[in-house]
Amino acid sequence: RRGEMAKATQLINNEVFRAYATYAAIVLLKMMLMSLITAYFRITRKAFVNPEDTASFGKGESAKKYLRTDPDVERARRGHLNDLENIVPFVGIGLLYALSGPELSSALLHFRIFTGARILHTFAYLIPLPQPSRGLSWAVGYAVTFSMAYNVLKAVWLL
Amino acid sequence: RRGEMAKATQLINNEVFRAYATYAAIVLLKMMLMSLITAYFRITRKAFVNPEDTASFGKGESAKKYLRTDPDVERARRGHLNDLENIVPFVGIGLLYALSGPELSSALLHFRIFTGARILHTFAYLIPLPQPSRGLSWAVGYAVTFSMAYNVLKAVWLL
Amino acid sequence: RRGEMAKATQLINNEVFRAYATYAAIVLLKMMLMSLITAYFRITRKAFVNPEDTASFGKGESAKKYLRTDPDVERARRGHLNDLENIVPFVGIGLLYALSGPELSSALLHFRIFTGARILHTFAYLIPLPQPSRGLSWAVGYAVTFSMAYNVLKAVWLL
Repeated sequence: RRGEMAKATQLINNEVFRAYATYAAIVLLKMMLMSLITAYFRITRKAFVNPEDTASFGKGESAKKYLRTDPDVERARRGHLNDLENIVPFVGIGLLYALSGPELSSALLHFRIFTGARILHTFAYLIPLPQPSRGLSWAVGYAVTFSMAYNVLKAVWLL
Repeated sequence: RRGEMAKATQLINNEVFRAYATYAAIVLLKMMLMSLITAYFRITRKAFVNPEDTASFGKGESAKKYLRTDPDVERARRGHLNDLENIVPFVGIGLLYALSGPELSSALLHFRIFTGARILHTFAYLIPLPQPSRGLSWAVGYAVTFSMAYNVLKAVWLL
Repeated sequence: RRGEMAKATQLINNEVFRAYATYAAIVLLKMMLMSLITAYFRITRKAFVNPEDTASFGKGESAKKYLRTDPDVERARRGHLNDLENIVPFVGIGLLYALSGPELSSALLHFRIFTGARILHTFAYLIPLPQPSRGLSWAVGYAVTFSMAYNVLKAVWLL
């Protein structure tokens, strides 16, 4: 069946598409990791937002004091939202780019730089590193996505 | 023309891809529903964030009092953001998984469990149900996406 | 190699897919633009959220006063989040729709109306225009995505 499916789609045999699938899966997993980091900070800092999440700490005022914001939790959440804002365009535009017939070497260059930049961005945000670490790693990922979009539009433009 | 397109892409004739398209459309529609639920709470609770949205309630102080947060509105918004954080990886990784040639039965199992878990998650968040209902339904969807990512990387790994 | 890839995927030669790729790239670039607009307002209004971003304004209290919210920054951020909530479903459902074999003219109609509506929505949000400008442009994009989802489910339904 696997062979049959591969024949049916043919995509899985294509090296550019395999490279895209590898890096898209990696950055999406990295984005999912932000949920665990936020949960870790919520639990260790005892900072929750939903009343039902603090029920195990007791009732009434004793539990209510854990309904609060914490700087580490908010930082992880901002990192997560920044991932959504940047990894979503990469995954969407990257798919179109992979299907637009680029050289494997160009495609790998785009995918690798983006993935490296976003991993650096997460470290720069969470540690946090002094600026312009976070700004630069953001800008590199942004530029890579923009370059892929340019290549897509050049190849497919049908308005 | 439909036949021609189907031949051109061949994807639409593939059962795993049809299953993916069905469940991806369902969870994306479920995510879109959160916009309507937020709008419903904003209107019934009279809790807005943009001054131009309260213009119909009059001018000046009489309208300004509706620029406020409301627990039900914020809860719906958190549910929506949680959908974005979890349904985006499912849609992206699920597409790669569907193209990586899984058995139809395995694919249906992944798609059905994820979709069920996210529908439960929405009920657990909005009612709200006592924990660990929301936590568990979140974790089940997360694990399914992780399992699909593992299968994708095993099938396509090209770093 | 381009020819080889195109043959391998065949998608790039398909007019509906080329139209999808064009409009998906455009709306994703539009969404990415919101990051630059938010950054522009943060810098011109001097309103930041991360302490490390204000280090260049000096140390201690002199920098701390720039850790604040600003209405224009928050408005741009809300526009960005609204894009995520609406453009993500368009990109996901639109891909499935493009692969489900619609007429080119129907597909172009869906893609053009959605793209126009979201560009209007951004202007309505940022200027801001009086309601119901923003509400209507949101609703039009929402209805287009819903129509595509309906067509996808009609074509592929495999539960």
